[in-house]
Amino acid sequence: MSHTNDFAAGAHRGAASRAAPRAPHIGVLPAGPLGTIADVAGVTVGHCTLADGALQTGVTVLRPHRGDPFVAKVPAAASVINGFGKSIGLVQLDELGTLETPIALTNTFGVGALAQAQIRAAIRANSRIGREWSTVNPLVFECNDGYLNDIQALAIGEQHFDQAFAAAGTEVASGAVGAGRGMSSFDLKGGIGTASRVVRVAGRDYMVGALVLANFGRLPMLTIDGTPLGRLLADRAAAAGAGTPSAAADPIADPMAHPTTGKPEQGSIIMIVATDAPLDARQLKRVSLRAAAGLARTGSVYGHGSGDIALAFSTAYTVPYDADLVTLPPLVADHCLDPLFRACADSVEQAIVDALWSAESVTGRDGHRRRSLRDSVPDLAELLGLSTR
Amino acid sequence: MSHTNDFAAGAHRGAASRAAPRAPHIGVLPAGPLGTIADVAGVTVGHCTLADGALQTGVTVLRPHRGDPFVAKVPAAASVINGFGKSIGLVQLDELGTLETPIALTNTFGVGALAQAQIRAAIRANSRIGREWSTVNPLVFECNDGYLNDIQALAIGEQHFDQAFAAAGTEVASGAVGAGRGMSSFDLKGGIGTASRVVRVAGRDYMVGALVLANFGRLPMLTIDGTPLGRLLADRAAAAGAGTPSAAADPIADPMAHPTTGKPEQGSIIMIVATDAPLDARQLKRVSLRAAAGLARTGSVYGHGSGDIALAFSTAYTVPYDADLVTLPPLVADHCLDPLFRACADSVEQAIVDALWSAESVTGRDGHRRRSLRDSVPDLAELLGLSTR
Amino acid sequence: MSHTNDFAAGAHRGAASRAAPRAPHIGVLPAGPLGTIADVAGVTVGHCTLADGALQTGVTVLRPHRGDPFVAKVPAAASVINGFGKSIGLVQLDELGTLETPIALTNTFGVGALAQAQIRAAIRANSRIGREWSTVNPLVFECNDGYLNDIQALAIGEQHFDQAFAAAGTEVASGAVGAGRGMSSFDLKGGIGTASRVVRVAGRDYMVGALVLANFGRLPMLTIDGTPLGRLLADRAAAAGAGTPSAAADPIADPMAHPTTGKPEQGSIIMIVATDAPLDARQLKRVSLRAAAGLARTGSVYGHGSGDIALAFSTAYTVPYDADLVTLPPLVADHCLDPLFRACADSVEQAIVDALWSAESVTGRDGHRRRSLRDSVPDLAELLGLSTR
Amino acid sequence: MSHTNDFAAGAHRGAASRAAPRAPHIGVLPAGPLGTIADVAGVTVGHCTLADGALQTGVTVLRPHRGDPFVAKVPAAASVINGFGKSIGLVQLDELGTLETPIALTNTFGVGALAQAQIRAAIRANSRIGREWSTVNPLVFECNDGYLNDIQALAIGEQHFDQAFAAAGTEVASGAVGAGRGMSSFDLKGGIGTASRVVRVAGRDYMVGALVLANFGRLPMLTIDGTPLGRLLADRAAAAGAGTPSAAADPIADPMAHPTTGKPEQGSIIMIVATDAPLDARQLKRVSLRAAAGLARTGSVYGHGSGDIALAFSTAYTVPYDADLVTLPPLVADHCLDPLFRACADSVEQAIVDALWSAESVTGRDGHRRRSLRDSVPDLAELLGLSTR
Repeated sequence: MSHTNDFAAGAHRGAASRAAPRAPHIGVLPAGPLGTIADVAGVTVGHCTLADGALQTGVTVLRPHRGDPFVAKVPAAASVINGFGKSIGLVQLDELGTLETPIALTNTFGVGALAQAQIRAAIRANSRIGREWSTVNPLVFECNDGYLNDIQALAIGEQHFDQAFAAAGTEVASGAVGAGRGMSSFDLKGGIGTASRVVRVAGRDYMVGALVLANFGRLPMLTIDGTPLGRLLADRAAAAGAGTPSAAADPIADPMAHPTTGKPEQGSIIMIVATDAPLDARQLKRVSLRAAAGLARTGSVYGHGSGDIALAFSTAYTVPYDADLVTLPPLVADHCLDPLFRACADSVEQAIVDALWSAESVTGRDGHRRRSLRDSVPDLAELLGLSTR
Repeated sequence: MSHTNDFAAGAHRGAASRAAPRAPHIGVLPAGPLGTIADVAGVTVGHCTLADGALQTGVTVLRPHRGDPFVAKVPAAASVINGFGKSIGLVQLDELGTLETPIALTNTFGVGALAQAQIRAAIRANSRIGREWSTVNPLVFECNDGYLNDIQALAIGEQHFDQAFAAAGTEVASGAVGAGRGMSSFDLKGGIGTASRVVRVAGRDYMVGALVLANFGRLPMLTIDGTPLGRLLADRAAAAGAGTPSAAADPIADPMAHPTTGKPEQGSIIMIVATDAPLDARQLKRVSLRAAAGLARTGSVYGHGSGDIALAFSTAYTVPYDADLVTLPPLVADHCLDPLFRACADSVEQAIVDALWSAESVTGRDGHRRRSLRDSVPDLAELLGLSTR
Repeated sequence: MSHTNDFAAGAHRGAASRAAPRAPHIGVLPAGPLGTIADVAGVTVGHCTLADGALQTGVTVLRPHRGDPFVAKVPAAASVINGFGKSIGLVQLDELGTLETPIALTNTFGVGALAQAQIRAAIRANSRIGREWSTVNPLVFECNDGYLNDIQALAIGEQHFDQAFAAAGTEVASGAVGAGRGMSSFDLKGGIGTASRVVRVAGRDYMVGALVLANFGRLPMLTIDGTPLGRLLADRAAAAGAGTPSAAADPIADPMAHPTTGKPEQGSIIMIVATDAPLDARQLKRVSLRAAAGLARTGSVYGHGSGDIALAFSTAYTVPYDADLVTLPPLVADHCLDPLFRACADSVEQAIVDALWSAESVTGRDGHRRRSLRDSVPDLAELLGLSTR
Repeated sequence: MSHTNDFAAGAHRGAASRAAPRAPHIGVLPAGPLGTIADVAGVTVGHCTLADGALQTGVTVLRPHRGDPFVAKVPAAASVINGFGKSIGLVQLDELGTLETPIALTNTFGVGALAQAQIRAAIRANSRIGREWSTVNPLVFECNDGYLNDIQALAIGEQHFDQAFAAAGTEVASGAVGAGRGMSSFDLKGGIGTASRVVRVAGRDYMVGALVLANFGRLPMLTIDGTPLGRLLADRAAAAGAGTPSAAADPIADPMAHPTTGKPEQGSIIMIVATDAPLDARQLKRVSLRAAAGLARTGSVYGHGSGDIALAFSTAYTVPYDADLVTLPPLVADHCLDPLFRACADSVEQAIVDALWSAESVTGRDGHRRRSLRDSVPDLAELLGLSTR
């Protein structure tokens, strides 16, 4: 089913250093040298992680370039695949086709604090904002980490944005870090995941990178590189003991409910896609929607309670704050977009796998615990048909 | 041009008590008894006003019913007419067709604080939010009051939401109050305005009410009940003195720029429309868009820098948090919606006029001052052809 | 209320040759030399009119440039203000941001024939369409002319497209011609209207032109340049005779129903906006929405039964069919769009007035008759305060 | 990877009668008794097939109920996943949330003829359409069958709609029939596919059915029930002979191009989803989007040239043409929708597999030939791990 992929120079990053199989390489496109969203030149990511008893949460900040995005705005667009979410900044993004702050990720109840932090940071950089100049549109995405984290504590403060921002670099940690600290995915430990792909379009190579905050899914749906791992595990559990709950036992009743709790999914996933291909906002919206394809291949059907949102941006040019005419580089024609669409889907799927692969087990509020994928499934490599060289 | 309107039992409220002409009655539909959004039974509004030197801002809270909207959700929908805005909560509203918190209005940089305040209030009322239950979607709208108010001070705190919420009642003040305190409109003092209309649909009377936060427009565009007041004033100014700046002087250069500063509009308007007619979210979206017609009739062309957003909700029924089946009352058929569309447009236009009519002159940061319409135009009644009985 | 406008070199075209007052000039922006959409260089329009007893219908074709739009696609976008309509081609336009055929207008039941005609014409020009090349997306808009025209006859054939196409030129007739032949507006004769405006943006002059197919509105709502003409006429009718029906008699019952028939509006309006300003599809969508402002100022609240659709395109550049990279000219920055927004609203309002002003009275099926505005209101100039020089 | 599914009473229909393995059962939800969209009570489907030399095309008509949908409108909504398509009727569907004609499917250049046919049929049934009553909104979807079919011949006429309509019944043929006659999918023969699923929601069983017109995809992407069949075949081809073209040879260049022709995808897929669950249009839009998940699992990333459109409707109630109040049954609450979402995704994926499984090899214009999946891959059962009992 799965296969080794020799041309993928960067087989999934970091994995080699672990006493564990590498994550499978999704699809046929090669990864970039880092295998993270930082393969898109100029993109940096920083985390601020809170891990203290019932507080298991954090902030992740993605900077689209090293300058000030308020004065050098970044072409961007988003697709709301399922809108059960509280992210902010999308109204203006949709109208103007640019983002003008870093992208901040956190838990659902930290959005207000990060919005204020972004505003204050923008004013510090540009003292005319809200005076001679227009106001600034903070971009903050969120998932609900309330299973592991005491989200009611509203523990995220403005300083956590500043710390994550200060930490931004090209070394992108994934797993139970930053905004991913308290997240769950497929009833396992989820969190931050990242990946990249290289595509050739019209004779040039372009990079596509993805960073996800994975907090969605129920175990019976989990599919990795085409293998219905969740179903295999459920079948095994059912075979192991009479009375063991299993999704297969009564799938008609609620195929998305957790087998033991019967509760529907309350997760979400945020998918950030970067590329150095020259695209305008309309085209980036088309690219962003292809995140839905990568997401679906992991087992998701965009559950009711899951805020599934994708944003894509291009680093190929910026839009100056005050120019009366905007000069764009030659844009990739729409009929050449297919490789970028595939790279978006593949890198998002790979990033989700990375989140599951990288996240360590975490215990949080009220003794709630999410086990890592690799702790939960000791024979993961065999089930996925992975080589363990 | 304008006309008196004898069938309008409630000629514009409050006006009688002022030593000034009543505002003209927009259109042919009669107003409700109060002439405010509180004519829609159950709707209440409260203000918290900060007026202290350079701080001229505030919070307005609209409660769609007297209960807890998280457990008794309110059918609602929004139209983003121009998305240069930072309001939050619309992603989920658009997906689910309900609102689940009161509607909060404030300045652009107060959104984060009010989001947190709404979250805390919801948790106080429902301790399972973010634990067994899903999270809550705070709904906060904003305009930029940075001309009069020191918006960089981020003066809005969570307590201001609580105070406005506590003050909510059926007496709806308009003008330079609450979120309207620092707002400007047509280079005059703007702020909160409200109005209502009664329509008969399929043999029954329904109420439509509007509440606006008016912070948009340049004087040369101002149109009141069809009279191009701004143009008349500009012509008069031009006639009065050589060298007096006038929009008419070089309209081709920038017809929306301010005649003296040449700066484009940076305002916004939030338009909340309530009705007791039984409508679903799809229909409410249709209703909300008709706010754009009322807005246009005041002179707006939905300027680039103006975040123009309309939200409509129905009080005819609520959607329970936990029912597996949702029972609706019989809904008004789409082919009967025209009276409601007209009532929306007329009440929004009336509410904008009310904001201008009610607002007092205000001086704020750095000596910036916005004069009230009636202070600015002593012969307003004559220009508009109003009776001054 | 209204005013003469000396700087408008082209006071409304054609009017001088009529023994009647010129139509009022809407707004403060000057018109172009022709006062039609053909002021946008390269745009041509042709009509094919069927006027024979019960058949009162036709076809209007607008060519965005003189070349083949399939191989030189035109940046374009549309806003569906009210979607009670059967126009075709918008799905692909919305995705790709270009139009690739001329724009055809006709009656509702002629859309299929014109789609086929457009396809055949495209294949004639490009024999590889539907073979090596992709298929073609015909763009056809419609209104329902069933009051005057026997629409059930499906009288429009493919040849009528070809005739209108062949007739396309820079002399743009308006009124009861082409697709406008059988249209009604405000219970008067409607049809084709057109106008233009010049704006200066970032130091350069740009042209904006509008062409409308006006088939909407009930007389009591009619507003011309701010004057509530419909209301004045209704009041006069009511004063003239006891028992004369009047909208004012029971406005609460249905403010949009016709005073005598009580039937709701079943009209529509198509609004085509052209500009030579360099804009991309996202910006053109913003421009197209401003047609809603011009439309509202004539009295419309976008009635339920009215398919109100606006399309905007730019002639500043084309997108080649087969280039892998698309080179754009420098684009007007979004913060400079306000003059273009105003020009869109004003030219659409002017074009609606032009349709009413230009259309002659027409009698069609079953003796149904629509009188022209000027036949209906002999003292039109006085009511509108127009000079009759 | 794949698995047999004993609880699925209706393992994939028809398959048993063929000397070939049954198609794999997608997912864990059981199929309905017929395994087609006709499991949703009231839904019927008819085909009219043209198969004569270079003409390989046809019409498929789906009737949502046995009555007249113009007077008993059907709640419905659509999601345009990729808008490179020429389907018509979606503007009004989106505005009003109902469909009012049968759903017709055909080739891209047959849309005009079928629109006219639908209009004529509606007038025959309701002679007041376009006179006292409003006009009718024909709903016609299309894919481009130009590889096998001489699409330039515009061979589809109005009579083909009538024939397909007359043939509508509960026996739903799939494969190279009706609109599917000339369609290609994954470089194999595609066409019509259908499937159904049963779900329990809030204590009740509901049926979900899908019918697709599959004309998308390139072979290297083909994935069936998680097995990357296209990649396996490409690898096998590469191993078989040096110089054999393979997607794996240079995936970076264009992962979606055909390995031999290098041409990008020009296909499309139309996905119709029916359910007897009581849902409103907003909810049906949510359901329709989940077709994107099923589609993605077959290997699609919604390629640029593929018009991917999903429509969902409910048979649980109808909306009368003329009632002033619309009474709905109790609706399924949004938080209970997950099983319906999954059923949509699974039945769409199953229907795509059905199209591939059912279609016979077809030779069309210029000797172009598409081989059936089962002709192309003799060891299909082994590759998919299917039992061949």
